[in-house]
Amino acid sequence: MASSFVNRAFYLRRRPQGLCTESDLELVKEGVADLEAGQALVRTLYLSMDPTMRIWMSDHPGYMPPSPVGSVMRAIGVGQVVDSRRDDLPVGAFVVGLPGLQEYCVADDSRLEMPFTVLPDPLPAPLPAFLGVLGLAGGVTAYLGMDIVKPQPGETVVVSAAAGLVGSVAGQIAKARGARAVGVAGGPEKCEHVTKDLGFDACVDYKASDWREQLSAATPDGIDVDYENVGGEIMDEVLLRLNVGARVALCGMISQYPHYNSSHERPGWVPQYQIMQVVMRRASMHGFLCTDHVDRYAEAVEYLAGLLAEGKLTYRETIVEGIENAVEAYNVLYTGGNIGKLILKVGEPAGS
Amino acid sequence: MASSFVNRAFYLRRRPQGLCTESDLELVKEGVADLEAGQALVRTLYLSMDPTMRIWMSDHPGYMPPSPVGSVMRAIGVGQVVDSRRDDLPVGAFVVGLPGLQEYCVADDSRLEMPFTVLPDPLPAPLPAFLGVLGLAGGVTAYLGMDIVKPQPGETVVVSAAAGLVGSVAGQIAKARGARAVGVAGGPEKCEHVTKDLGFDACVDYKASDWREQLSAATPDGIDVDYENVGGEIMDEVLLRLNVGARVALCGMISQYPHYNSSHERPGWVPQYQIMQVVMRRASMHGFLCTDHVDRYAEAVEYLAGLLAEGKLTYRETIVEGIENAVEAYNVLYTGGNIGKLILKVGEPAGS
Repeated sequence: MASSFVNRAFYLRRRPQGLCTESDLELVKEGVADLEAGQALVRTLYLSMDPTMRIWMSDHPGYMPPSPVGSVMRAIGVGQVVDSRRDDLPVGAFVVGLPGLQEYCVADDSRLEMPFTVLPDPLPAPLPAFLGVLGLAGGVTAYLGMDIVKPQPGETVVVSAAAGLVGSVAGQIAKARGARAVGVAGGPEKCEHVTKDLGFDACVDYKASDWREQLSAATPDGIDVDYENVGGEIMDEVLLRLNVGARVALCGMISQYPHYNSSHERPGWVPQYQIMQVVMRRASMHGFLCTDHVDRYAEAVEYLAGLLAEGKLTYRETIVEGIENAVEAYNVLYTGGNIGKLILKVGEPAGS
Repeated sequence: MASSFVNRAFYLRRRPQGLCTESDLELVKEGVADLEAGQALVRTLYLSMDPTMRIWMSDHPGYMPPSPVGSVMRAIGVGQVVDSRRDDLPVGAFVVGLPGLQEYCVADDSRLEMPFTVLPDPLPAPLPAFLGVLGLAGGVTAYLGMDIVKPQPGETVVVSAAAGLVGSVAGQIAKARGARAVGVAGGPEKCEHVTKDLGFDACVDYKASDWREQLSAATPDGIDVDYENVGGEIMDEVLLRLNVGARVALCGMISQYPHYNSSHERPGWVPQYQIMQVVMRRASMHGFLCTDHVDRYAEAVEYLAGLLAEGKLTYRETIVEGIENAVEAYNVLYTGGNIGKLILKVGEPAGS
């Protein structure tokens, strides 16, 4: 039996080469079947536009298995239960999880890679915040990384993609810990946002031809901590300025993701890194992944909510509306058009 | 006043480009002045031929300041006090330290970067062992690195330059800890030494055209620990095979050292590394340096002596004779001609 719901969903048709296009992700309109026992229907409200999705589109075994060709593209989002045949997902509840790049998601024990988490009632923050400053792949990731590299008072911390969600929170945590925060971002507007709004001590404009000189001027005492979101030649320059005992939190390397095309070959571009600096400076580099630390979600949210309450944590969102604009919105991540967390608004909560 | 001693010393005349030559290091014959108060004269017996010396020859601020142009080239060695005007260095005592690339060294508080350490009497091992299996930059370095990455029983540990001193000890420590040890070495003779004599489970011949397949076959369950001495494309291939939670001990990267020519420019060759693997595998990389851990020397020697006593630690030395052969001997490090620790024998102990 078909329900009265009509879904629009992006199916992964082929694995992209370079940026993804609408030939890679096809928007399909389809009916939604009536629920069976043990199922719930979640209406997608907000979807997180994550750099990692580009790796899921490739066949690289990265953080999670690749998104299968022929199925709905994986995506993190917030939704609301609109129909239910299971007790743990009551109608009306707000949830966060992996609804996919679609308007409606049938949740059951077998069809989702990760179960939905029901958000507290009443909500302690607006819904999009749970994809951003309080999201597992957002502020919580910044918290976890900074907890590994533990900036000390007076140390110099460099944060790449400082105008992005994770970077902006990471730098503000560094400040809250008494360290000097130096951001790296693209263009004068973003750099001004990073210093004026987010309170970093300095920001290097990587789109300026003198970015090396800017980095050098902003880190006169060298670099003690690098919170790395980008990789490539700027990270390599950061390595050259590491102090003895420096720590690098490897959160991600967005500069590389569009070059992940096939697992059978090296990525189309592999950066050169002077890793010998890590030896000479007796430094360390730490890869980490938020989904390994789900048990620390409450601890992280408590810390971040505390900073918010003290006025020490500012965040911004860029919200694009309409599931039909998903591909275009997603590619904005790679052209640097967003400030703060990039979110696709797909629907309105019931009763709002 | 001139003493009766005549010294032969290699002076650093210019900083090498590529391998060092006798135009970079000049052998000079010179008299030795009589000792002043607070000085001792140390006769060099054995000198350690260390990859790191190539970095000291450059003007890169690496582990230690560059060796100054115009002075005797820095080198680690074992010697014997042959004349003394200080109580802590009595005539006849055997010492280890930085005598330099010369036959006689005047030791006092100002003229040496690192004081000499007097070896125990009677000697618990032959003199060259204190530059090798029991040396700070030798077996002790292997111990310190393995103590950072802590191989667990059943884990797979890859060790590059496995036929070299540090690599050979690192792999044997991995075995003693119950892990599977896979070496990487150049040529069938070295690989046979690594498996037959040193007891590694497998050895990959990096000079063979199918080294990637060999590495894959030798690590069917992936790689949990990498003890890295070489860097470059083999390390990059190792990164691709890291398991979740893998640890990399960054001890050195000999493949790069001949490309360190000037601190004002990038090294002549910088490898490409898929550091993104460190993120995806939630791995970590740890640079370390033996001289930071001199306070653990006794602990390390006790551990290594224990393995020697249990027959779990085999080592080899390649000894080249004659100070005049220093440059040629040194370059053997970069052509892969040595098995085990490469030592230059400069003199005989008095009374032997």
